[in-house]
Amino acid sequence: MDASLIMDALSERADIVEDCLDVLLPEAPGLEARLFAAMRYATLGGGKRLRGFLVMEVAALFGVAETCAARVAASVEMLHAYSLVHDDLPSMDNDDLRRGKPSTHKAFDEATAILAGDALQARAFEVLADPDTHSDPQARAELLLSLAHAAGARGMAGGQMIDMEAEGRALTLPEIARLHALKTGRLIQFSAEAGAILGRSPSHLRAQVAAYGRDLGAAFQIADDVLDASSTAAELGKTAGKDKAAGKATFVTLLGIERAAMQARMLSEQAVTHLEHFGEEADRLRGLAHWVVSRKS
Amino acid sequence: MDASLIMDALSERADIVEDCLDVLLPEAPGLEARLFAAMRYATLGGGKRLRGFLVMEVAALFGVAETCAARVAASVEMLHAYSLVHDDLPSMDNDDLRRGKPSTHKAFDEATAILAGDALQARAFEVLADPDTHSDPQARAELLLSLAHAAGARGMAGGQMIDMEAEGRALTLPEIARLHALKTGRLIQFSAEAGAILGRSPSHLRAQVAAYGRDLGAAFQIADDVLDASSTAAELGKTAGKDKAAGKATFVTLLGIERAAMQARMLSEQAVTHLEHFGEEADRLRGLAHWVVSRKS
Repeated sequence: MDASLIMDALSERADIVEDCLDVLLPEAPGLEARLFAAMRYATLGGGKRLRGFLVMEVAALFGVAETCAARVAASVEMLHAYSLVHDDLPSMDNDDLRRGKPSTHKAFDEATAILAGDALQARAFEVLADPDTHSDPQARAELLLSLAHAAGARGMAGGQMIDMEAEGRALTLPEIARLHALKTGRLIQFSAEAGAILGRSPSHLRAQVAAYGRDLGAAFQIADDVLDASSTAAELGKTAGKDKAAGKATFVTLLGIERAAMQARMLSEQAVTHLEHFGEEADRLRGLAHWVVSRKS
Repeated sequence: MDASLIMDALSERADIVEDCLDVLLPEAPGLEARLFAAMRYATLGGGKRLRGFLVMEVAALFGVAETCAARVAASVEMLHAYSLVHDDLPSMDNDDLRRGKPSTHKAFDEATAILAGDALQARAFEVLADPDTHSDPQARAELLLSLAHAAGARGMAGGQMIDMEAEGRALTLPEIARLHALKTGRLIQFSAEAGAILGRSPSHLRAQVAAYGRDLGAAFQIADDVLDASSTAAELGKTAGKDKAAGKATFVTLLGIERAAMQARMLSEQAVTHLEHFGEEADRLRGLAHWVVSRKS
């Protein structure tokens, strides 16, 4: 599938997710107005919404109502946004630029950024637990269990810890692969799996889309390292070359750009093989797998 | 009921919650070991476990199995512990002492403390979503919805935002009451309500224990301000007199110690009135209400 078709599809889904986020993250009066404003600032108007796209595309495979899928997509994007806010903090990656604008602690302040991240995480779970997201409490509880696992110490937060520990010590290739799997992989895998959970899919199909998400996430992250090593900040909308500046080992520093890019393509092809049980209705997911390793930003 | 009996009951429940936390927050090998260690450091071995006690006492009123109630109690204590870790950070309250030992960012470092808080929040939700906590997914989804609301921008995180905004501007008494309700009240109310949710209680009884929790939380917080103004760090196990040092308006600065203490006692008595539908099996909850306004630390 043509890259421009994928970008159109991403953009179309992103608009739906954006509208949903706009409703789920209202402004508020009172002394806590600053917190609500920071939550909106950190979440709205940015990003490719790759995770939200995955939720919605897989949900569509299983015939899930778009309004339900959009809420789950919004929830995942809130969780992702919170992780970016905290990762950018001075005591973490100390990054002043995110999605082409000042990161949340620069636009507000550190305390507000920490709280906005905290509140976004809570809001993500609150949205999933709401009966509006799915009428079956079993589906909601499964979504919550999977998302909480993907977000926590055995997922995203654990991955960020490894990333912090990696400063000043050179990780091996398997260690970096594990870092990726935890820091970004689990949430991307959840995004694909969530669509199947929403659709009360049979477990073998849920396992297939989860495997697709896992490999896609791994491909995406290596491609990100390749982009970080070969792009400018203007192209990325965030600080470029920061892995090298931080002295971090990545697939690129260990394998070189060419072999790292090849590894990403291999994983992307592997992701597509997990979709063999699906027909042409999964073509956009196949196209996405090719797009994540060929994109320029 | 005698204060020493309440303290014994608190201590007995705290041991059960501690054992449960010890299992739910294991150590882990690998590069993320530091994160798991910080989560344990922040959560284990400290505090009165007031919130956990409430969960377990109310759950007992409704005949809930102790193992289920202990998991929910542990989950609430993880959420509370996370909030303390983040509140203590340099960009927030900048507090070096917590429960008589160095706060988490002093014992580890700032990045680890932020991540430990983040991961504790996720773990709290993960434990609630687990079928081991309750066999009925409806009960789990209700617990999750209520806890997420209590934790987020319309609860604990929103309250902390107001607390930050209050530095350098004098809040009025109604504003302080609202700060308390959000920052600590919602979670204490949830703790009482959770026992009723676990017990699939009729809604009128759930509303009664929720009202008890709300008034108890308000009494507790004013009593905390009174203690902060009249104790030493050695007595409290945390920095004393910090409200005054931060120039913050509290019930004590606005009403004086005597009238603030009287307000706390009034709320404590009001809390007890909500338990009139219960017999002597609720005597420890009644005793707790008196204890929170008469304790010395």
